[in-house]
Amino acid sequence: MELANIGKIKEKIILGIDPGTSVTGYGLICERSSGPELIQYGVIHLSKYKDPYIKLSKIYERVTQLIDEYLPDELAIEAPFFGKNVQSMLKLGRAQGVAIAAAINRQLPIAEYAPKLVKQAVTGNGNASKEQVAAMLIQVLKIKEAPKLLDATDALAVCLCHLHRSGKQSVKTKDWGQFLKENPGKLKHS
Amino acid sequence: MELANIGKIKEKIILGIDPGTSVTGYGLICERSSGPELIQYGVIHLSKYKDPYIKLSKIYERVTQLIDEYLPDELAIEAPFFGKNVQSMLKLGRAQGVAIAAAINRQLPIAEYAPKLVKQAVTGNGNASKEQVAAMLIQVLKIKEAPKLLDATDALAVCLCHLHRSGKQSVKTKDWGQFLKENPGKLKHS
Repeated sequence: MELANIGKIKEKIILGIDPGTSVTGYGLICERSSGPELIQYGVIHLSKYKDPYIKLSKIYERVTQLIDEYLPDELAIEAPFFGKNVQSMLKLGRAQGVAIAAAINRQLPIAEYAPKLVKQAVTGNGNASKEQVAAMLIQVLKIKEAPKLLDATDALAVCLCHLHRSGKQSVKTKDWGQFLKENPGKLKHS
Repeated sequence: MELANIGKIKEKIILGIDPGTSVTGYGLICERSSGPELIQYGVIHLSKYKDPYIKLSKIYERVTQLIDEYLPDELAIEAPFFGKNVQSMLKLGRAQGVAIAAAINRQLPIAEYAPKLVKQAVTGNGNASKEQVAAMLIQVLKIKEAPKLLDATDALAVCLCHLHRSGKQSVKTKDWGQFLKENPGKLKHS
């Protein structure tokens, strides 16, 4: 039994991205039969670049690099559907777009979750603070100390949310559209 | 002299994109010493795909394909800075993002122009109708008949606008941020 549990066949790696034009957070989690396991997390600092295309290229290149290094099976992104104004939403959309393009380029299925849904899935409370989310992640992922940057925490949280939402069913298709058709409840919180 | 004029050294190919989640227009123009010359134009129909990731992947893949087929030197995109609401701007931002990512992936310099600036550059009137823009394109590019889909016209117009804006100076750097720093007036209409 133990041998079966540590068999690689059940592993699934999720890359979580919290896109933003100032800071983009990323996290990688491996789903094992023993539970979710932290692989890596970090942030891409973008505020130092003034040129918007340089910012976008940094996001695109880093996400591509993460995909090539850790070979995740799926991409989960945190995606707010509402924002303060059209300008900020356009910028956010572009940041999401280049992250999505990096996944498309490597044929990864993509899923997105609203911040409230991520908090709900991780803490049971859609209005949880970032600190509460971080505290839960430390416990679930057995992290020794809290990530200093909460954008990385958000990226890990969206990974966990994705694992929680996809539940025990594994995503066998590369065609995410088809998958969503077959799982219409996937984007709604149960 | 004539031999020098038809020398390939002065040619520059511009790929113009008018991103949208229903229809994305594209156009390719070659700048020759004899004037701008039409290479290709068309549209990517996206309304038939329901899945937003399929739409984005079609844009990304087609733009990549166009870059690989025609080897443009620069990408020019039509980019409205204002929209009806945050939802539509997020979608537009994503569509722009994947087109930009395709250019980043092939290390193309990117420039963007607001619709009003494109109209101004092509017709001399920032409030020109799409039909007026199309009529001017037919004349300048010696097109035999008007493109049926005006999104393709917009993409050709943004190419012409880019050539007009970059004027006689050639973009020698691949670092667009640096280029903009050296040419601060580039995004303002002279």
